Amino acid sequence: MSSEPESEVVEKARSARAAAAALASASTAAKDKVLGAIADALGEHAAEILDANAVDVGGARKAGAPAAFVDRLALNERRIGEMTDGLRQVVALPDPVGRVIAGWKRPNGLEIRKVRVPLGVIGIIYESRPNVTVDAAGLCLKAGNAVLLRGGSEAIESNKALVRVIRTAVERAGLPRDAVQLIETTDRAAALQMMKLNGLIAVLIPRGGAGLIRRVIENATVPVIETGVGNCHVYVDRAADLAMAQEIAFNAKCQRPGVCNAMETLLVHQEVAGDFLPAMARRLIEAGVEIRGCERTRKLVPQAKEATEEDWHAEYLSLILAVKVVDSLDDAIAHISKYGTMHSEAIVTTHYAAARRFTEQVDAAAVYVNASTRFTDGYQYGLGAEIGISTQKLHARGPMGLEELTTYKWIVFGEGQIRS
Amino acid sequence: MSSEPESEVVEKARSARAAAAALASASTAAKDKVLGAIADALGEHAAEILDANAVDVGGARKAGAPAAFVDRLALNERRIGEMTDGLRQVVALPDPVGRVIAGWKRPNGLEIRKVRVPLGVIGIIYESRPNVTVDAAGLCLKAGNAVLLRGGSEAIESNKALVRVIRTAVERAGLPRDAVQLIETTDRAAALQMMKLNGLIAVLIPRGGAGLIRRVIENATVPVIETGVGNCHVYVDRAADLAMAQEIAFNAKCQRPGVCNAMETLLVHQEVAGDFLPAMARRLIEAGVEIRGCERTRKLVPQAKEATEEDWHAEYLSLILAVKVVDSLDDAIAHISKYGTMHSEAIVTTHYAAARRFTEQVDAAAVYVNASTRFTDGYQYGLGAEIGISTQKLHARGPMGLEELTTYKWIVFGEGQIRS
Repeated sequence: MSSEPESEVVEKARSARAAAAALASASTAAKDKVLGAIADALGEHAAEILDANAVDVGGARKAGAPAAFVDRLALNERRIGEMTDGLRQVVALPDPVGRVIAGWKRPNGLEIRKVRVPLGVIGIIYESRPNVTVDAAGLCLKAGNAVLLRGGSEAIESNKALVRVIRTAVERAGLPRDAVQLIETTDRAAALQMMKLNGLIAVLIPRGGAGLIRRVIENATVPVIETGVGNCHVYVDRAADLAMAQEIAFNAKCQRPGVCNAMETLLVHQEVAGDFLPAMARRLIEAGVEIRGCERTRKLVPQAKEATEEDWHAEYLSLILAVKVVDSLDDAIAHISKYGTMHSEAIVTTHYAAARRFTEQVDAAAVYVNASTRFTDGYQYGLGAEIGISTQKLHARGPMGLEELTTYKWIVFGEGQIRS
Repeated sequence: MSSEPESEVVEKARSARAAAAALASASTAAKDKVLGAIADALGEHAAEILDANAVDVGGARKAGAPAAFVDRLALNERRIGEMTDGLRQVVALPDPVGRVIAGWKRPNGLEIRKVRVPLGVIGIIYESRPNVTVDAAGLCLKAGNAVLLRGGSEAIESNKALVRVIRTAVERAGLPRDAVQLIETTDRAAALQMMKLNGLIAVLIPRGGAGLIRRVIENATVPVIETGVGNCHVYVDRAADLAMAQEIAFNAKCQRPGVCNAMETLLVHQEVAGDFLPAMARRLIEAGVEIRGCERTRKLVPQAKEATEEDWHAEYLSLILAVKVVDSLDDAIAHISKYGTMHSEAIVTTHYAAARRFTEQVDAAAVYVNASTRFTDGYQYGLGAEIGISTQKLHARGPMGLEELTTYKWIVFGEGQIRS
C-alpha cells in the first residue's frame, strides 16, 4: 500500500484541483442534484458498504480496539440512513457561492464587487469514523469545492466503498468524479505529504482528537483550521440563580459528555459555593460523574478527588468533572484565559455588569449567558450542518458551515481606468 | 544580542498578550487618542529617530547594501511626516470592533449575536523598512490588537527608536505600553521562535519579499496570512479596444513597477497580436522596459529577448515584462492558473461573455475587466489603509484593512436554556 505514497497524494490533489474548477462554476441545482444522487446511491449500495465496513470492524476487534472506537467505526442500516438524511439536509441549505457580500462604485467609476467563491480543494484529515467521509464530501461539494479525504487506516475498506459509490454518483449526476478523492495510502508519510501541498490544497481541516490536530498544526504548511478541542467552563457567579445554574451545569456535563462543547470544568464563586456545590455534586455523582476538586471544593464535597494541574487542562470527553471555587469573577475569567481552549464558555448570573464583563473579556468562539455550552453547534445556531467547530481566530470561529467553506474574490469592472 | 533570544521573544509575547486584553475593551476614542499621541510624539522626536536611522543607513552603506535597499531603509523629515499622516488617516477610519455582524433569535428564545472582536496579538515579520513599524502598529492598535514586531536587522536602531517613542506615547495616552513590542534580537532563531508561539500569537503576517514569506509559511505553526507576492497578468482579448488595452498595460507595468500589483506578464490573443504588440512594445521600450517574449512575440517585436520557463513564474518588480501570445481566452486562463500567484489579474475586452468567463474562472484575490491591476489597494477600493494584500484564501483575500485585523465571537444570551 505504501509503495508510492508520493505519486498517489500529488496525483489525486492535482486531479481534485482540476475538478474544482468545474465545481466552482456549477449551478446550485447541479450541486444539489449531485448530493441527491449520492444519497440515493448510498441507500442502493448499502449492502456493499456494510460488507466493507464488516472487514474494518473485524480487523479493529482483532487488533483489540476499545469498544468506543469500534462503535464509532461500525456502520449499520440506521447509520447509513443518517448519512443520507444529512446529505438531504445539506441540499436544503442555501448555496453561499455567488453571493455579493458587498459592492460599491468608486469616484473614478470603478465598480467594486466582493463576491463569495469556493475555496478550491479542501483537505480533510480524520480518524476512523466513516460518517465523516460522507458528511465532509457533502458539505464541500455543496460549497463548490473539491475534497481530498484522508481517513484513519482502520476505516480504509469502509472509506473505499463509500468513496467509490460517491464518485460514481457524482459523475452520473453530471459533475467530475475527481471532485471527491480518497487517499488510500494510510501511512503517516502520505498524510505528511498532504500537509505540504501548498498551491494544490487551499485549506486543511483536521477532524479528530487533540493529538491529530496538534500533528497537523505542527507539520502543515498549507493553511489549517483548528477544530474541536474543547476545555469548556461553566462559571456560577455570586449572583447566579442557583437552580438555573444546576440545570445548566448538569446539562453541559451530562447531556452528551463525549463531545467538544461539553463542560469539563465547573467554576463556582466562593460566596455561593456552600449553597450550590453539595446539591450539585450529589446530582452529578448520582449520574455517574467523578468529581476532581480544588481544596475548597473538597471541603464541601467529600467524595471529590484532588484536582491536579492536569485536570484544569483536561478535555475529559467523559463523565469526569474538575471543580474549582474562585474568589471572584476576575478569577474565573483569569482561569478560563489560562486553561481554556477558546471553544465555549458560560456564565450563570443575574447581574447585568457581570454578564457584560464575562462576554466582553472571555476570549472564546462562543460565550454564553445563562445557557448551556452544549448549544455551540451549527443546527442549534440555525446555520445548518457544520464540518466542525473552529477554535482558532482566523477565517472562521465556532460552527463552520457552508459559508465558512468558501472565500471571496474582488471583481472590479472598469471602462479603461488606469491609476495616476 | 542573541544571548537569550528565547526569553526575550516569549516574555514580550506574554506581556503583549496581557496588554491585548486591555486593548480589546478600549473604546474607539481611547484608541484614536493613542494614535494621535503617537503621531505627535513621532514629530516631536524626529531628530532622535533620524539619528538612530543614520546609524542603520551608515551600517548598510558600509556593508555594501544596494541603493534601492538603502532607499527603503532611509528616513527623513518628509518620510516621518508620511508616517504621521498615515496614523491620522487611520484615526479617521471607522472602528470595526464591537460591530454586530449578524444576530437573530432562535425558537427556544436564545439570542445569537456574531460580534466583531480583535484578534489578540498580531505578529509582524518584515524587512528593513522602518515605515512598516509605524504603519503596522497604528493599524493593529486601532483594530484593538497588541502587536509583536520583528523587523530586519539592518533597521534595528531605527526600529528601537521608533518603538521607544511609540510605547511612551501609548502609555501617556492611557493604554498599556506593552501593546507594542519590538523583538530586538534580530537573529533567525528569534524569528523561528516567534513563528511557533501558538496560544500567544493569534496570527503572523509576513511583509516582504517572496523568500521571507516562504520562510514563514514553511516554519510557522501559528496561523499565517500570506501576503504580497504578485505575478500579475493583463490579458488582451481578441475583442479588446486596443487603445484602451495599451493604456491599461502601460499603466500596469510602468506606473510603479516595484510593487506587488504591477503587471509582470502580458498575454495577447493571437488574432490581435499583430495589430497590438508592435506599438505596445515600442511604447514600453521607450519607457525603459525590457521585453522577454515567446516565439510569436519575438517575430512581432524583434528587440524582445527569449522568455524562459522562469520568466512566466517571475515577479520582476522592475522594468522587465514577459509577453506571450495565446491562442484563446481559455489558454490565457490556463496560463494564469499555472503561473499566477492569485493576486491581481485583468482582461481587456469588449465582449460580454469573455468578461464573464474571465471573472468567474480566474482564481485570484482581484480580477479586473478593463482596468489596471494597479488598483488592488485599500485606498483605491475605498477601504482605507491596509497592512498588505492577502494572496491566500483563508480569512482575508486582497487588501487587508482594519476589519481583516479582527475576528468575531458568538455571544449567546439565554434565560436558563439547556439542550435536550
